[in-house]
Amino acid sequence: MIINGEMSEERNNPQRREFLAEAVRLSVESVRTGGGPFGAVIVKGGEIVASGVNRVAPDNDPTAHAEVVAIRSACRSLSTFNLAGCEIYASCEPCPMCLSAIYWARLDSVWFAADRVDAMKAGFDDDRIYREIELPMEARSIPCHQIKLDDDLHSFELWARLSGKVEY
Amino acid sequence: MIINGEMSEERNNPQRREFLAEAVRLSVESVRTGGGPFGAVIVKGGEIVASGVNRVAPDNDPTAHAEVVAIRSACRSLSTFNLAGCEIYASCEPCPMCLSAIYWARLDSVWFAADRVDAMKAGFDDDRIYREIELPMEARSIPCHQIKLDDDLHSFELWARLSGKVEY
Repeated sequence: MIINGEMSEERNNPQRREFLAEAVRLSVESVRTGGGPFGAVIVKGGEIVASGVNRVAPDNDPTAHAEVVAIRSACRSLSTFNLAGCEIYASCEPCPMCLSAIYWARLDSVWFAADRVDAMKAGFDDDRIYREIELPMEARSIPCHQIKLDDDLHSFELWARLSGKVEY
Repeated sequence: MIINGEMSEERNNPQRREFLAEAVRLSVESVRTGGGPFGAVIVKGGEIVASGVNRVAPDNDPTAHAEVVAIRSACRSLSTFNLAGCEIYASCEPCPMCLSAIYWARLDSVWFAADRVDAMKAGFDDDRIYREIELPMEARSIPCHQIKLDDDLHSFELWARLSGKVEY
């Protein structure tokens, strides 16, 4: 865990600032090339192994946020679904979709420049979605309903009995 | 908004139960064909327009959850990043990555069978990640740090001035 003076030193680490500056540079280039204003890079062992920019509108893919694009690219490059040992640098604080993707990908740490309030001021829903997913289901703006079915645990039962499965 | 008796009627709606049963059927088939134990379908105007199963391990893609796969497929089929007018049926309660993707895709509603506690018992981190993303950054198991840079709002400034941009 990084704390106090050590944290301040980490924040001023020139290499970290350089990786983050690259993510910011990608976010600027993205606006100039038809994408959304977000960029991210993934670093392993002091080297950038993948990058991504927001391609939601040009690619008709609402999940194509910079961080998700970078994670998918890094996993393809490294032939794994597990990015333990890697760090992600993002031009803006990851939205809850991207933050959860970072957890699923087991990244070591997250470094970002602008934050969810800056994104909100720029017209993006990051902050609103953070607040929505914390709400009980019945209070959310997108209604979520559970319907129990007789066999709804069948796939989990098969999974539990499966030998040689790859867990994540 | 659907409430009380109306909600109970909605839960017993045979068509809804059929769509959900299809998502559960896909989750079972997925285990038998090398994927994770999750399935989802997207419905528009009473028809299934896309489906997805969990492909994290076979495709080396930590974001390839059933709901994300189905959303990306529906967006490709319908040539849009906006799935307003569509509903998603998932064999299990969406994890926070998938739920946030559902918000970004503007789906109308979410129907699911098993829930995050069932997923936890089956060995999956959905419940843990819900709890992690609600924590303040300094308390999370994956450290998140902001480093302000001089030009970190530049992409948002360019975005604000861009004419003809596609907002989402």
